[in-house]
Amino acid sequence: MTVELVCVGTELLLGNIVNTNAAYMSEKCAILGLSMYYQSVVGDNKERLAELLTCSKERSDIIILCGGLGPTKDDLTKETAADVMGVALVEDEKAKENIRTLLMKYHGEITQNNWKQAMVPKGSIVLYNENGTAPGIIIESGETSTKETRMILLPGPPNELIPMFENQVVPYLHSLQPETICSKMIKLCGIGESMAETQILDLIDAQTNPTVAPYAKTGEVHLRLTAKAENETAAYALIAPLEQELYKRFGSFIYTNDEKVTLESSIVKLLKEQNLTLATAESCTGGLLAGRLVNVAGVSDIFKEGHVTYSNEAKEKLLGVPKETIDRHGTVSEETAIAMASGGAKAAGADVCISITGIAGPDGGTSEKPVGLVYIGCSFKGSTVAKRYHLSGNRSKIRESCVVNALTFLRSVLLK
Amino acid sequence: MTVELVCVGTELLLGNIVNTNAAYMSEKCAILGLSMYYQSVVGDNKERLAELLTCSKERSDIIILCGGLGPTKDDLTKETAADVMGVALVEDEKAKENIRTLLMKYHGEITQNNWKQAMVPKGSIVLYNENGTAPGIIIESGETSTKETRMILLPGPPNELIPMFENQVVPYLHSLQPETICSKMIKLCGIGESMAETQILDLIDAQTNPTVAPYAKTGEVHLRLTAKAENETAAYALIAPLEQELYKRFGSFIYTNDEKVTLESSIVKLLKEQNLTLATAESCTGGLLAGRLVNVAGVSDIFKEGHVTYSNEAKEKLLGVPKETIDRHGTVSEETAIAMASGGAKAAGADVCISITGIAGPDGGTSEKPVGLVYIGCSFKGSTVAKRYHLSGNRSKIRESCVVNALTFLRSVLLK
Repeated sequence: MTVELVCVGTELLLGNIVNTNAAYMSEKCAILGLSMYYQSVVGDNKERLAELLTCSKERSDIIILCGGLGPTKDDLTKETAADVMGVALVEDEKAKENIRTLLMKYHGEITQNNWKQAMVPKGSIVLYNENGTAPGIIIESGETSTKETRMILLPGPPNELIPMFENQVVPYLHSLQPETICSKMIKLCGIGESMAETQILDLIDAQTNPTVAPYAKTGEVHLRLTAKAENETAAYALIAPLEQELYKRFGSFIYTNDEKVTLESSIVKLLKEQNLTLATAESCTGGLLAGRLVNVAGVSDIFKEGHVTYSNEAKEKLLGVPKETIDRHGTVSEETAIAMASGGAKAAGADVCISITGIAGPDGGTSEKPVGLVYIGCSFKGSTVAKRYHLSGNRSKIRESCVVNALTFLRSVLLK
Repeated sequence: MTVELVCVGTELLLGNIVNTNAAYMSEKCAILGLSMYYQSVVGDNKERLAELLTCSKERSDIIILCGGLGPTKDDLTKETAADVMGVALVEDEKAKENIRTLLMKYHGEITQNNWKQAMVPKGSIVLYNENGTAPGIIIESGETSTKETRMILLPGPPNELIPMFENQVVPYLHSLQPETICSKMIKLCGIGESMAETQILDLIDAQTNPTVAPYAKTGEVHLRLTAKAENETAAYALIAPLEQELYKRFGSFIYTNDEKVTLESSIVKLLKEQNLTLATAESCTGGLLAGRLVNVAGVSDIFKEGHVTYSNEAKEKLLGVPKETIDRHGTVSEETAIAMASGGAKAAGADVCISITGIAGPDGGTSEKPVGLVYIGCSFKGSTVAKRYHLSGNRSKIRESCVVNALTFLRSVLLK
């Protein structure tokens, strides 16, 4: 079954916003085993949208549209889609009620154009919207169509689109397919994307069912395993040997096989299991490592304190880094990273402390210590080690890489 | 003049990556005064790409393609575009030399398929790539075309695409236009997007030349002013009265009219001008505020130290927040925010300290203190005030909003 995306919105054509909806829906469709060959963006223009939909209707089984379902005159996705599918618009009582409730709750008044959102194509499936006034719509039949096509219309704001897609569109798309599709995410850290891909090229080349697809994140590689079968049990049974094979090949590079677990949450779990407390001492990242750890709700049980010591003065005062160490070896050195980590652990009274000192650029690099040179220190129950890194990218990319490398380093120490 | 984007890459159709290139190029084209009506994404498939380009060629003056210029068999953007434009591929000496130099430097070897990247459509303009082996290409004439069309082929990786676009494509697109187009960015904080838009609706409705377009960022609104004229001086002269009008309407909500200045860099500048030093004391943001300040190169002159005190224990120990304050008023309270800010300033010996304490969720909210309740404290030369906020969104959105609100609050104190 083929699917294509049509995102409607002048703000996308002007570059005012990034099309994250397209990436989100594409990944979901891929997991569902749907083949996507086209994505398009058009503005709020009836003629151009109608032309595109007429073309899409001939080449794809399912067209997912998002955006242009608002109450103003500019919003014409619904009217255009209904036209192309050859169906009229009728008022939907439940949608009307939902609009009334939401508007009275948040605005205390309703203007006439709001009722436009209660009109839906005749015979369509209405997807009720818990987070906004625009209902989603599935149009299944088209009197003027030459082949069977389905159009799924969704609101543009991600906080409305995502729950609607997750709770109503995914089950609908599932129901169209003869087979059940299941997937699992294996997440790796400490290995580069191309290195990870190279090690599974044979699996990717030979794959039919299950399949494995790599997704690169900063400093991490995620592998999505997907299988089709007559039911869930059979699908997961197909995934199991592939998963085992990946564990055999990647071993401890894999930090989880649970989609919901993040690198930082897996580390917080390791610390809790080992009954260890943590502190941080950051220079060039300036708090981003601590900020990422605090992504994990409940981290306060083990996270004692974080020190942001961007200046040398703060490194000396808060972490007790000896002035001689900085003078002799420099702020960005193995010795300073070690002194920061051991000093940070001592100051916080923590079992573990991770430190970061580096040159994030754009200035401050020399031929001896170029931009991207970073030392990460890890103090573990009184003994401290440090590692040297050469990271690439601009200032913000280097700092982001520092954080992931620090987490990966900490994980390797905790696994020892 | 009309332009459309065609992004080539199966990784976009699978949702492996977000199409940030499209947003980047759309904004640039809008600044250049080009009208964009379509964006498309297709996979690495010759037939579908050719079909799309044949259609695009008839409806747009300029087609910008990105992706699919790599050395492997899958990469066929160049071959397909040349076919559609009716031109043959020939070897380009300078591109070949560039490939040789880059590959020898980074890989020490060259494989046969790398030379594929040195082939360019006959008579095309070659855009040399300083950051990769794929040259960009501009094809100007097509023997089989029924109207004058230009295709601009660019590499997909943003670190190659962006400098090439900035340095070579923008001047080229400029040269096609009879007029000079100039733009200026006015950045606001402390005002919501819809509030800002409402205040300039009359300007937007009446606009022809110059134009003003709002771009929403988290907690900020950016207004792009653009004008066309026979030369730069005349274009900026058209912008000037509009800019004055915006300053009249928004006053101190505007923190800069310089595209390169960020909210954090404008605050660091204010602190330096007033000869003040800064400290931070963060709870729910866990270091993100400090991390954002450290975006500014050279912040160490004024940024004394940052405290990440997620646990109550750390708030008491590092910031000297009295245990009774927390027991009596709660961790998330005006009193605790004030104690954190004044304690943080004292501990760091800083003139100014900003504190954040809030409930970022998803857990921890009560009917009295719901998720999104945040107090931000600001200590300024010994006197401390705090403000209450109700922020919306998920955990990460709330924490991001905290940071921007803290910066905005600090700015308002510094301006007093």
